[in-house]
Formats: sequence, structure tokens, C-alpha cells
Amino acid sequence: MLIRLKRALAATTLDSILLVCKELGYSYAFLDEARTLLQLDGLGGADHRTRFEDLTGVASVLEAGSAYELHERAPGRKDTRVTVRNAIFGDGNVSLIGGPCAVEDSERLIEIAQRVEAAGATLLRGGAFKPRTSPYSFQGHGERGLESLAAARAATGLGIVTEVLDPRDVERVGAVCDMFQIGARNMANAPLLREVGRTQTPVLLKRGFAATVREFVLAAETILAEGNEAVVLCERGIRSFDKTTRNLLDVGAVAHLKRATHLPVIVDPSHAAGRADLVRPLSRAGLAAGADGLIIEVHPAPEEAQSDGAQAISAEEFSRITDDARILAGLDGRRLALSGTSKTQPVETLT
Amino acid sequence: MLIRLKRALAATTLDSILLVCKELGYSYAFLDEARTLLQLDGLGGADHRTRFEDLTGVASVLEAGSAYELHERAPGRKDTRVTVRNAIFGDGNVSLIGGPCAVEDSERLIEIAQRVEAAGATLLRGGAFKPRTSPYSFQGHGERGLESLAAARAATGLGIVTEVLDPRDVERVGAVCDMFQIGARNMANAPLLREVGRTQTPVLLKRGFAATVREFVLAAETILAEGNEAVVLCERGIRSFDKTTRNLLDVGAVAHLKRATHLPVIVDPSHAAGRADLVRPLSRAGLAAGADGLIIEVHPAPEEAQSDGAQAISAEEFSRITDDARILAGLDGRRLALSGTSKTQPVETLT
Amino acid sequence: MLIRLKRALAATTLDSILLVCKELGYSYAFLDEARTLLQLDGLGGADHRTRFEDLTGVASVLEAGSAYELHERAPGRKDTRVTVRNAIFGDGNVSLIGGPCAVEDSERLIEIAQRVEAAGATLLRGGAFKPRTSPYSFQGHGERGLESLAAARAATGLGIVTEVLDPRDVERVGAVCDMFQIGARNMANAPLLREVGRTQTPVLLKRGFAATVREFVLAAETILAEGNEAVVLCERGIRSFDKTTRNLLDVGAVAHLKRATHLPVIVDPSHAAGRADLVRPLSRAGLAAGADGLIIEVHPAPEEAQSDGAQAISAEEFSRITDDARILAGLDGRRLALSGTSKTQPVETLT
Amino acid sequence: MLIRLKRALAATTLDSILLVCKELGYSYAFLDEARTLLQLDGLGGADHRTRFEDLTGVASVLEAGSAYELHERAPGRKDTRVTVRNAIFGDGNVSLIGGPCAVEDSERLIEIAQRVEAAGATLLRGGAFKPRTSPYSFQGHGERGLESLAAARAATGLGIVTEVLDPRDVERVGAVCDMFQIGARNMANAPLLREVGRTQTPVLLKRGFAATVREFVLAAETILAEGNEAVVLCERGIRSFDKTTRNLLDVGAVAHLKRATHLPVIVDPSHAAGRADLVRPLSRAGLAAGADGLIIEVHPAPEEAQSDGAQAISAEEFSRITDDARILAGLDGRRLALSGTSKTQPVETLT
Repeated sequence: MLIRLKRALAATTLDSILLVCKELGYSYAFLDEARTLLQLDGLGGADHRTRFEDLTGVASVLEAGSAYELHERAPGRKDTRVTVRNAIFGDGNVSLIGGPCAVEDSERLIEIAQRVEAAGATLLRGGAFKPRTSPYSFQGHGERGLESLAAARAATGLGIVTEVLDPRDVERVGAVCDMFQIGARNMANAPLLREVGRTQTPVLLKRGFAATVREFVLAAETILAEGNEAVVLCERGIRSFDKTTRNLLDVGAVAHLKRATHLPVIVDPSHAAGRADLVRPLSRAGLAAGADGLIIEVHPAPEEAQSDGAQAISAEEFSRITDDARILAGLDGRRLALSGTSKTQPVETLT
Repeated sequence: MLIRLKRALAATTLDSILLVCKELGYSYAFLDEARTLLQLDGLGGADHRTRFEDLTGVASVLEAGSAYELHERAPGRKDTRVTVRNAIFGDGNVSLIGGPCAVEDSERLIEIAQRVEAAGATLLRGGAFKPRTSPYSFQGHGERGLESLAAARAATGLGIVTEVLDPRDVERVGAVCDMFQIGARNMANAPLLREVGRTQTPVLLKRGFAATVREFVLAAETILAEGNEAVVLCERGIRSFDKTTRNLLDVGAVAHLKRATHLPVIVDPSHAAGRADLVRPLSRAGLAAGADGLIIEVHPAPEEAQSDGAQAISAEEFSRITDDARILAGLDGRRLALSGTSKTQPVETLT
Repeated sequence: MLIRLKRALAATTLDSILLVCKELGYSYAFLDEARTLLQLDGLGGADHRTRFEDLTGVASVLEAGSAYELHERAPGRKDTRVTVRNAIFGDGNVSLIGGPCAVEDSERLIEIAQRVEAAGATLLRGGAFKPRTSPYSFQGHGERGLESLAAARAATGLGIVTEVLDPRDVERVGAVCDMFQIGARNMANAPLLREVGRTQTPVLLKRGFAATVREFVLAAETILAEGNEAVVLCERGIRSFDKTTRNLLDVGAVAHLKRATHLPVIVDPSHAAGRADLVRPLSRAGLAAGADGLIIEVHPAPEEAQSDGAQAISAEEFSRITDDARILAGLDGRRLALSGTSKTQPVETLT
Repeated sequence: MLIRLKRALAATTLDSILLVCKELGYSYAFLDEARTLLQLDGLGGADHRTRFEDLTGVASVLEAGSAYELHERAPGRKDTRVTVRNAIFGDGNVSLIGGPCAVEDSERLIEIAQRVEAAGATLLRGGAFKPRTSPYSFQGHGERGLESLAAARAATGLGIVTEVLDPRDVERVGAVCDMFQIGARNMANAPLLREVGRTQTPVLLKRGFAATVREFVLAAETILAEGNEAVVLCERGIRSFDKTTRNLLDVGAVAHLKRATHLPVIVDPSHAAGRADLVRPLSRAGLAAGADGLIIEVHPAPEEAQSDGAQAISAEEFSRITDDARILAGLDGRRLALSGTSKTQPVETLT
């Protein structure tokens, strides 16, 4: 590790820094006469970087060396693979998630589940607890929504991913779902992150709409640090000054995260676009940038919602995206996971 | 209320919209031949706007008319005044909050409390539970921090405001503090907002660093809708592309909020600036734009932190800001609240 | 056209609006009793929307109807195809542009030109006049740079695209180049746009780094309105709060522009990424979102620049991007334009 | 100067860096064994920092030392004072600029000029050449607008400030105006900046709506480097994700610029707010943050424009802002410049 100290430190401040070095098992040496560049040698630990950054007198940690944080791709570290029933994310595997925004009645949900599975999805999304900006908006069906999801899984075999909003709900949501979703509004909600981190249920962690990439991976780190290693990162567009799309899909972050972390990264083109007609091109862009999957809103009756910027697509459009995904995954020798009942067939040739 | 419907609605969709109109006690009329502009007359209700916005077939609510949301400044509605011990916010009253970022030991905190009170503060801030980006950073002293805050209050009479991060902590934090702080990371954390909304303890609600003004007031609405009317809004700078200041203090939002809501609005110049040397000019700018108070980080030993962009100021600088605040409040005939022991004296005249 | 008027207009204001309607050949009718919705029928014209928007008393133009602006994709309007020597952009054609950031000496430029041509480029980029933030930075070799570009074209047959910064330089730059580049800093520089609009030389128009999509197409409209129809739009990343990549590549804007305009759209992954290792994934993402080409910085000796975030890639990496481009263009039945000497061969199959 | 070199430089690269050191009159020494920290001693020069930053092998200039750029506040450097007829900016002087957005007919302009002068303005603003987003929008009256401005000056004695858009217009605009305005769209238009830098007419330089503070001062540097020392910086709001105000007034940048440069800094509350009702609070906020003046749009008949977000204010509101300005300037012992005919009287006392 290479640490830049502040200038002209009090002797007591410097002593307490050096004491921490020893306690963490590092030997050290100053590299410059002004004693502001401190070189440490030792075995490292995921929390060491932050522990030094937090010390009074430390300006910055220039190189973390062997103190790899848990989400980081240490040299030689291979991709984490997260498996959720038939879906596989990462380590050369691409999977698609589809489903409605909010769960409505059970029968309808089963029908959608069957259609998205046939169209290529291996996981079903659907909100039982909905995060809403206005306190007067519909907040989801809660418990009853969870039951509908369980029924849809029983009918299709698709795993289910659903959002949890409150640390007090983690147990009852976890009793039903196959994967937790942490929404963009809650990316920095540490009590909630820690609570899902204490389970062994896979977590789909969405990037906050104004979170830096560093804040995003530290939210993942909060889950990993509690012992849950099955974290899938999800880029869903960030806030910008332009309103052509609802949010701005940050494909650069996707490409960067694939290099800097070993975690799977997927893309949510529906919330990024906010418009059904742009979901397919954004899906392609995300996969082409290296994403390990997609999570897409599918509407039971898209013709009702097609006007006015609605972002849900039809099962037919989902099926076209599945075809794209198979080809784009193939570009890098990756494989698209499909459930047994998928009607979509592999493409033979592409010239 | 004036509602814009989507074009070419299905008859069943239109019927269900009109049914809601009747249920909420409105008479209605279409204003155009294409039947997309619907005029409603009735008594209104705080949740009506959202209920219509959420209906399938409604494009937007153009004018809310009498359906005032709880935070809104209906015609003739006077300012909400929030009183927290000696501090008074709104309705012509300006108050200053000072204190350390995180609570350390009890003795030190009492000393700071005495100094900020002497310098003009009427409320003491201090974090017992700290929201941190990294899971490895210091998370605050928790319960022990609350005890230190209570001791500082006992020693000075200053009320205390402290952050609550987890809905499960609302009860124990509320047993000690005089005012809850909801931090920027939690502005959209509905379970937490609802929990503090169910108490009668005043709430200092910070704007999320990428929240629109509409999202900000709807977060306040979530608290108000639970029955707690003592909400103070706090602008603390939003995220931008430029890093000259840590965040960008949105004085336009302060001026707008004072017109659009009846709630007190204060400014946090410390987190906006991220630099001690800009805290005073930003304090002035916030008050000149109409803010009803300030919340400022004061460091026990600012000389230790003065290098490297630290944002805490000395008690002496706080005292200068108190002098500014008295004059700027006076510009509009407002009054700066002071505790009995404040050494700062009122300015005699200002024409 | 459907126009929303402001409420309670003075009679003279309304009269002057209606007079303009008649002068532009429209018949009109009010759709509501309050006389704020005005329906116009007529042949339309590219400048009509703006003329109405600019009138006192007009709140907004809700639907432009037949008043298509020149850049807009009117129903049935097919893609504009812009041909620059061997390069073809739009209408099913994809082309790649490569070259150094700034033009250095003539010999070196010829060598690079030969390498990028062999790697799949059909146009050579290179700056003779450089826009710089600091007045003390190197501003390009000017006239001598133009001569080097001409020499490189003579040696390879590649067309050349180079930036023009000053309306007074349009004539002398146009005498040499095959395509003007208008840089991001100058997207809203109307005198410069008009000057290149008066030529018949194709124009590569880069999006300003904080320009909305509407401002971007109106910059193109400024060129088109002068009579030059050969405009290629270039998305090069916009400014955001996160510094993981230098700019944020807006693939949603690419997908939207392909739907909303008939102009070719290309992507500059080099300026978006600001890092050589992300140029390839961003190239793929742009093409997958529908871009008609790429403009990429290639460094003569990338090993010299590889440290420290340099964004130029090697000719070998360019060659890999050419292979990607052929496959991604093929996904939609589009064709990658190649010059005769390109060593890259079509891919036979992809499973 | 303290320079950080890249690691493992080629010997030739290092040699050429050291050669430049010698040529610029610096002695040098390496501070670390790895030879990446280079300490230079010498007299400095405004262009030295950039010259080093541009060298291959230089990672960054850590401390500029004596190489002060022309806009920088070197130790002991007092404020630049820019005088434009009766207006004085900087060095303890505050002045107000008022006038219409675009110049219309001469008679009307004279009337406005008389009203804004009576209300406290010492400079008249008005656009003869207008920068517009759409090519079809009104572009200003050009030459005829300049004549109207000259007539208004003759009638009142107010100096005039007007925008110049094209380097080819600098001479004819400069023949009439007392101060050039460089608009936000042209902040990075180097040919235009250089052209006004070659005159001795004062320049009002507006910050680009997405320019960093560093880019802003380097635009000023471009003017200063040509020999024109009379530059006034103008913060006019930057672009953000929230649309409550048209732009976000960056009062932190104002406070920072007053510390980091010796140039006067003023604020444009009209373009920041985009709403007449927020012009006064933003004016106050700007002055309270340290601004040396304001530039405000005043509408001849504000009642015509009052609906729908128009940003121009009445002369009466301007007069109220003048009263505010006198008090806020007095807070720091600064003085508000007034022309002889101003009806506004100085405040007697402020303690």
C-alpha cells in the first residue's frame, strides 16, 4: 500500500498512524524526505484501505496493493457466478429477467410469467412492495403480491426477484423470493444492505440514480462484508440534464465494472429509457458493452400502455431481444441461459 | 382541478376515471371536443392529485386547484413555525444549529456545546449514528453518542438534533433527541420517513443530493401525511459536474420553496461547500435567498483539520456568521432566535 | 399544427398571432372555449414551428404536424446517406474514422494513415487547428497540419476530416479537407455553423458536452437551413457527476436520434471513455444502439501513451473493433464500408 | 513549482522535460528515489504551468509556485477594478446592469434606459446580435440595434454592454459599445476571446452553462493573455437535472472566484432563475456571496410577460434590488456605484 500523508503532521498523529500499520501487520518506509509518502508491505485485508483513509493525517491511499476490497478483481480472481434457479449471471453466462412493474392479480401474473419464459426469460421480476415518490401513490400489494409471485413460480419454474424496501421485511420477503432486489433509492441504505447481506439469498443491487461508481461498489461491499457473496450489480441509468430518455444508461460504467470487479453486471434498459421503443437498442448496447444480463419490464397488455412514454414492452419484443442477446453473448464466447420451455431457438448463422 | 387525459381512451378506462371523480366528490365537464381536458369542481384533498396522476388514462394534472398537498402554501396559508426548545424556524424566525460532525467523548462535546451556544447557536447537532459510504468506515458511537448528546443538553440547555438511519432506531433515538435529522441518503427512504412521521418530534429533512425539488417536497409530504407537522426542509447542495465545491448549494430552490411551501427551509453550508473558507459566504447567500436558519459543522480544534478541504469552522467564525444572520434576517423584518447565554449582542439599527 | 396559447391574451396579441397563421397559409380553429388551443391546417414549412414558438402569446407548439424541420424524419422520409470518398454513413452503411488527435509531422501521419486504413478505416481524422482550454497549450500546426493531411490523403486515398474553429478559416480548411468537423465546444457557434452550411462539404457535427438532444438537432438544422444537406451527427459523451469515464456516452440519444432524424449518427468512443481500455466496449455499445459509424483516436506509438488514462488505441485494437463493427452492422442488415486496401476480411460465420 | 512525472519514463522523455526546465530558467531537484517528484525553483511565468502540463511524461503540476496565471490572485495582489463610465466593478465597488433582453426600437430603448438608470443601474444591457438555439428564431436587429444602443447612451449617459458573437463583428461592435459581452455559448470560443482580448474595451465574460470553474478562468486567461486586463466574470447559473429554476446559480463558484482570482465577479440572476419572482432573492444571494455586481433583464412592459415563467422584472423591482444591493455591499464595507440621476438615495447607517 502507498499512503500520502498530510504535510507537517503533529508527532502524535504520525505515531498513531504508524501504530495502526503495525497492528495490521505491515512493515513501512518513508519514500521522501518530507515524510509524506509512506510505503507499506504486508498481507492486506478488505477493510484496510478504508481504515487508513479514515485516519487523521492521511491525505489519500494512492495504491491499495494487496488490500483488495471484497468486490475488487484481484489479479487472477475469476468472475463470480451467481445462479438463481435456471438463471446464471457472470463467468461467461448471460440471463434475462422479465416481468411486470408491479404484481397485480395472481392469474394475470401466471400468464405473464408463462409468456416471458417462452420469450427467453429465466427469472421473473415483479414488485410486491413498491418504492414511490408520493405517499399517496399505490405502494404495492405487499404480502398478497408475494403470494402471487410464489404461485407464478409454482406454475412455471421461473425463479422470482422482488424488491425489499424495509430492513424489517427482509425475513418475510426472503422466505418467498429467490433473489432480493435493492432498488436505486435504497442503494445507500446501509441497514437494509446489511440485513440482506446476512442472508444467503442472491441480491440484485441497483445503482442509485446519482451514485458514483465508487459509491456503487461500496454498497456492494457492504453486502459482501456481511457474508453474502451472491451480488449482481445493475446499471439502470443515471440522472442528467437532458430528458430525451428518462435516465442516461451509463454503458461506460458497465464496461468499467466488468474490469474492476468480479461481480456480474446487468442492465435495466426499461428504467433507463422510460420509453418502450428504446428498450431494444439499449438492451443491445448494454450487452455489447459487456453486461451479463438484462432486467426488462414486460406489460401484460402493452397496447393499453403504448401511448405516452410507457416503458413496458410486449413479450414479442422481449423475444427479439432474446435473439439479440444470444448473438451478442456469442461475440465473446459467452452463453445465454435459457429455461427448458423457451421457444426461442439458437440462431444458426450470421453473416 | 384540470386533468389532461390521454387520447383515444377505451370506454372502460374513461368510465373508471369518471367513477373516481364521483367518489372523491367532484362534478366534472369536458372542455374540448376530443374529450381530453377534464375540469373538476369539488372540495379537494391532499391525496387527490396523486390519485388522479396514478390512474391509467390520465396524462397529467394540469392544475391542482383546491387539492392542496399538505406541504403546499394554499392561498392565505401562513408559515409553519417549528419550535425546538430555544430554536424557532419559520414565520419570521431564523435559528442557527452548530456542532461537530460525529459525537466523540462527552466532555469534549459539552465544551463544544458551550462554545457554539456562546457563538449564537440555539440547537446542537452531532451524529451518534453516521451514514457512511464504506462499510469499513467508523459508523458512530450509537447509544453512547446519544448519552453524550443528552449530557451536553443538560449542561447547556441547547436542544439536540441527531440523525436516525434505521426505522428500528426511531424509538430509542426519539427518546433522547429534540429533533430527528433525516440525512440526504435517506430522503427517499419511505419506511423511515413514515416512522418519524408517526412521532410528534420535529424532523429536519435534508434534500437528497440528486433529488428534484418535487421529490424533496413529496418526502416531506410522506412525513406530514402520517400526522407530524413539524418538518423543516434543509437544502445542502446537490451533485454537479464541477468539483470546486463538494456540492452545489441550490439557492434558487431555497427561494422557490419559501414561495411554494409553508414549511421552514434552512441551509447546510458545510456540506455544500466542503471547505471551511466558503462556509461563511454560503451561509450569507442562503439567508439572503430567504432561508430560515443554518446548520453548520463546528470543529473542536479547527487547526487540526484546517488543511485539505476540511469543512468544519471554528466557534469564532460561527460567531461572525451569527452577526451576518442578524443583519440579513433584519433585511426582511425577521428575527434571529438566540438562547439566553449567547454573548452575541443584537445590532441596534438597520435601515 | 396544434398550438397552446397563453391565457387571457390581449386582443391585439391574438390578432397578430392569427395574422401570422394566414400569412403562412394556414386555416385555423379554436378547440376549446377558453380559446387557448389553436388547430392549424396547411402545408407547413421547416421554420414554421419556431416562428410560432417565438410569438408573444404562444405558450407552446404541441404538435408540429406537417411543419417538419429539415432534420426531422417526416413519415416515409428515408435515411440521408453521406458519402465522403470511400466512407458512407447512413442508409444502411457504417464507416469507421481513425487517426491521431493532433497532426504532427507529415511522414508520421502517412504511416498512421496507412495503418488505420489497413485496420479498416475509410476516413482519416487529425487536428490541424486544436481547440484548447488553456491559451498556453499547443494550438495545432495550422496551415502546415493541413498540408500533412493532404499528403496523407495523396499517399493512401483516405478522405480527411479535420476541425474548423473559426468562421474565417472555413474557406482555407474547406479547400483541403473532405469533411469539416465542428467540435463539441463549437456546437452552438452559429456563425461557424452558418459558414460551413454555405459550403457543400460534408460536416461532422459533434454534440456539445452539455447540449440537450433538442439543442443538438437545432445546431444541425442551422447547417441544413443554409443549404448543406450532408450533416453527420456525432455523440461523444456528455458531462456528468461521475468521473469513472471522462464523459458519459449517451447511447439512448443515439437510438433516439436514429428514430427522430434522417441524418446519420456516429459515436466517438475515445472522447467518451478517455481511457484506451474502454474504447472497444463503447464502440460496440454505440454500434449496437444503432450508430452508423465510429470516430476513434489511434496513436502512432500507443505504448508511450498507455499509462495515465490516455485514450488513443493501437491499430491492432482498431482492427478488432472493425471486426466487431462488421458483425454488429450485420445484425440489422447494414454494411460496413471498407476501402480497397483494407486487410480485414469479412467474417464468414458466427454461431 | 512541484511536478509529478509519470513512472518509468524513457531517458529521452526525461531529458526533454529537464531541457524545458532549463530554458524557462528553473533549477531543479528530484525529491524521491523513483524520480517522479521534481522540484523547480525560478521566477515563474503565466504560461509555465500549462507548458509543463502539456509535456509528455508529466502527470500533473502539483504546486504552481510562482508561475501565477494572469487571472490568479498571487499573494498581495489586490483586486482588479474595472470601470465602464459610471459603473465600477471590483476592489470594493458594486454596480448594477439593467436592460431588455433584445434591443427593439430606439424610442422604447431610451425609455427603458431612463427607467433603469433612475432605478439604480449604471450600465445598460441590450442584445443587438442574439445567440439563438433555432436558426429560425429572431437573431436581433444587428447594426440597427447598435444604433439604438448608442442613442440610449446619448440620452442617458449610461454605458452600454452588448453581446458579440462573431470574431468578424468585434471591430464594429467595439466601435459602439463600452463593454463587450461574451455569452455563455461562446465562453470556449477561443477565436472570439482572442479578438476581444486584442482590444482595450472591457469584457463581460459569462460562464458556460456546463463549464467547470477551471475552464471559466482559463477562458478569462485567454483574453488576459492577449493584453486586455479589463475582464469581469459573470456567473449565470449552470445546467442541472432539476428544472425548478432554468439554471442553478452557483454561489459557491462566486465565493471561490473572489478568493482565487483578482477579477471582479458579477451574477446574472435573470438567466439563472428564468422566473421573475426569483430574481430578487437570487440577486441578494449573489451579492451576499461576494459578487461585485448584477446584470438583470428589465422588461419595458412586464405585465405582458408576467405569465409563464418570463424572467424580466419591472423597474420598480429593480429599484428594490438596488436598495438590497446597497445594504449587502455595506456588510463588507463595499460601495454601490450610482449614476448622478439615480433617484435611489444612499442608506445612512449600517452597523
